Amino acid sequence: MTDSFFFRQIAADGAARRGELATPHGRVATPAFMPVGTQATVKGVAPDEVRKTGTEIVLANTYHLMLRPGAERVAALGGLHAFMRWPHPILTDSGGFQVMSLAQMRKVDEEAVTFRSHLDGAMVELSPERAIEVQSLLGADIAMQLDECVRLPAERAELDRAMRLSLRWAERSKRAFDGSSAGRALFAIVQGGDDASLREKSVRGLVDMQFPGYAIGGLAVGEPQEVMLKIVEIVAPMLPADRPRYLMGVGTPVDLIEAVARGIDMFDCVLPTRNGRHGLAYTRFGPINLKNARHADDQRPLDAESHHPAARDYSRAYLHHLAKANEILGAMLLSAINLAYYQQLMADMRAAIETRRFANFRAAALEQWAAGDIPAL
Amino acid sequence: MTDSFFFRQIAADGAARRGELATPHGRVATPAFMPVGTQATVKGVAPDEVRKTGTEIVLANTYHLMLRPGAERVAALGGLHAFMRWPHPILTDSGGFQVMSLAQMRKVDEEAVTFRSHLDGAMVELSPERAIEVQSLLGADIAMQLDECVRLPAERAELDRAMRLSLRWAERSKRAFDGSSAGRALFAIVQGGDDASLREKSVRGLVDMQFPGYAIGGLAVGEPQEVMLKIVEIVAPMLPADRPRYLMGVGTPVDLIEAVARGIDMFDCVLPTRNGRHGLAYTRFGPINLKNARHADDQRPLDAESHHPAARDYSRAYLHHLAKANEILGAMLLSAINLAYYQQLMADMRAAIETRRFANFRAAALEQWAAGDIPAL
Repeated sequence: MTDSFFFRQIAADGAARRGELATPHGRVATPAFMPVGTQATVKGVAPDEVRKTGTEIVLANTYHLMLRPGAERVAALGGLHAFMRWPHPILTDSGGFQVMSLAQMRKVDEEAVTFRSHLDGAMVELSPERAIEVQSLLGADIAMQLDECVRLPAERAELDRAMRLSLRWAERSKRAFDGSSAGRALFAIVQGGDDASLREKSVRGLVDMQFPGYAIGGLAVGEPQEVMLKIVEIVAPMLPADRPRYLMGVGTPVDLIEAVARGIDMFDCVLPTRNGRHGLAYTRFGPINLKNARHADDQRPLDAESHHPAARDYSRAYLHHLAKANEILGAMLLSAINLAYYQQLMADMRAAIETRRFANFRAAALEQWAAGDIPAL
Repeated sequence: MTDSFFFRQIAADGAARRGELATPHGRVATPAFMPVGTQATVKGVAPDEVRKTGTEIVLANTYHLMLRPGAERVAALGGLHAFMRWPHPILTDSGGFQVMSLAQMRKVDEEAVTFRSHLDGAMVELSPERAIEVQSLLGADIAMQLDECVRLPAERAELDRAMRLSLRWAERSKRAFDGSSAGRALFAIVQGGDDASLREKSVRGLVDMQFPGYAIGGLAVGEPQEVMLKIVEIVAPMLPADRPRYLMGVGTPVDLIEAVARGIDMFDCVLPTRNGRHGLAYTRFGPINLKNARHADDQRPLDAESHHPAARDYSRAYLHHLAKANEILGAMLLSAINLAYYQQLMADMRAAIETRRFANFRAAALEQWAAGDIPAL
């Protein structure tokens, strides 16, 4: 245990911010990317290898962990950090997004969301208070309020109802969290879908409640990138400058660059690991589908200048073979390579903001990404 | 490249032998266990992690690699050692066993075996000469003759026919191999099923041809352990003492101990990695099925005295969770833990032979294994 939670901004360049989070399990340089450790493991990457990609904080899932192995069990085993052997910061989401995307027979009322577990069919109730309790049992450095996340497109009335419910749940979450926090932090989640006025109402309500950090939820749920960025442009400037801003579930490398340009400090996304398991590599040259036959005889590495040894040492031909043969090692190597690429991108953005050349960095990175892979042999 | 192939015996204790193989890619202490890298990867374990388990030599599969990615392609990419980033010794099997177990529409005649690829349905011919060519293209330190492997139980006439064909194919393999060997070695394969007189005929025929090493094939194909050990007892003493003896496809830890006691020097088996992927851990206390609910709250490691960090550092509760949740990390950790257990068992056997206390070691290991796991909390 080192610090109670705090956030400080170190530098800025336009709307882009360079900062630092302190948590009971260590500090995190922002803008930060959080790999997703859904079930208490970043899929296909051992924790020491996750660390070697440059990762300082991971995300874990309240929904999954409360169902299996169970929050009380994890607490009895010493908490999530010890359980998954990740002694560094952990953020847990509240389960709202997974209830929307995974659970069956979902019923939302004022009190709680009730759903059927996707694992064993049991009926489970998740209230704002229980979501806080679960996250405290897990020992998250940063907990998220329970919210109701609505898939887009959606009717305005539905977005309005869910946003207002999420506001009331934010208040209950805060009441449940305060006093039991031990240096940990609770973030609120801005909702309101793709409707600017609903987003503004959500922000005003949450900022009045004074949270140590604010997330933008309900995006990356099927809307075009321009809609997502428009909402970020509306919401980010309304949030207090001295609190971290977390864009949930985003995104591609280009999404990250564009969102940092608009003042976002934190991200999580399954793309680097999920796409790695399916043979897609993220590189400076854009995404490379290693299942493509053009890599079968290519002796060159993915990127000779990568900071990750696997991107330098293994040939594209071998990675192609592993992906085609569905070998576990392919998922392992590409997941780690992709996380390392994402973390290098974040480090490069942080350096660019510090030296006030973010606009140049952004233009150059987007250009190189758009130009595509170096030509095949 | 270090040495041309040779084998020397360093010590003996009863029938058990302690020796050393030299190959173009390094030396191997025997008795040796070879993890199986079917498709140019030991499933779920990166090559540097394979090495850290104490592994000095791995096996790769001619059948799989000739079909995908293709032997000529691997050769053009610099050979199998470079392709899979395993700069240490490699033994390749000849494909005979996989043709029996995987291929469809198999037709064996004097010239070759013809079969339908399990990948794309293409008809493929594999002759003794082509099996040698493929293994030379791969760059195997130790190649195996093409044989015909028969599933047990089988009629004596069928075993006799396949054994005689394998003898003639041994001769053709040797002719194809000699002169192109560059310090590499070709091993012959004793066949004859569970019939002692056929096994004797096979041994006599092969020993007359003077191979640098001899394998016992056609076992671990469904017969009881006592049948397997009886055949080893008949065959091993008939083989020249100055050549290594390799028992193909074997086996459980108890199989290895019993076969070393009968004079075997080399083994390969998928059990440590395949069972690791299915939640089974090999330990000093016998096999432990981590999917069993009794591990769910067990904070202890698998074996606090293991040489492998993952067996010491992760709790049984976490390994149970990973196995139940089908997480890749569970397969990764248990595959590495199991290989490390196998390699430690081999190292312990080598030390016991050197100090002439193999009988004691064998009795103690079997007793501890039979006693089962340390009691649950």
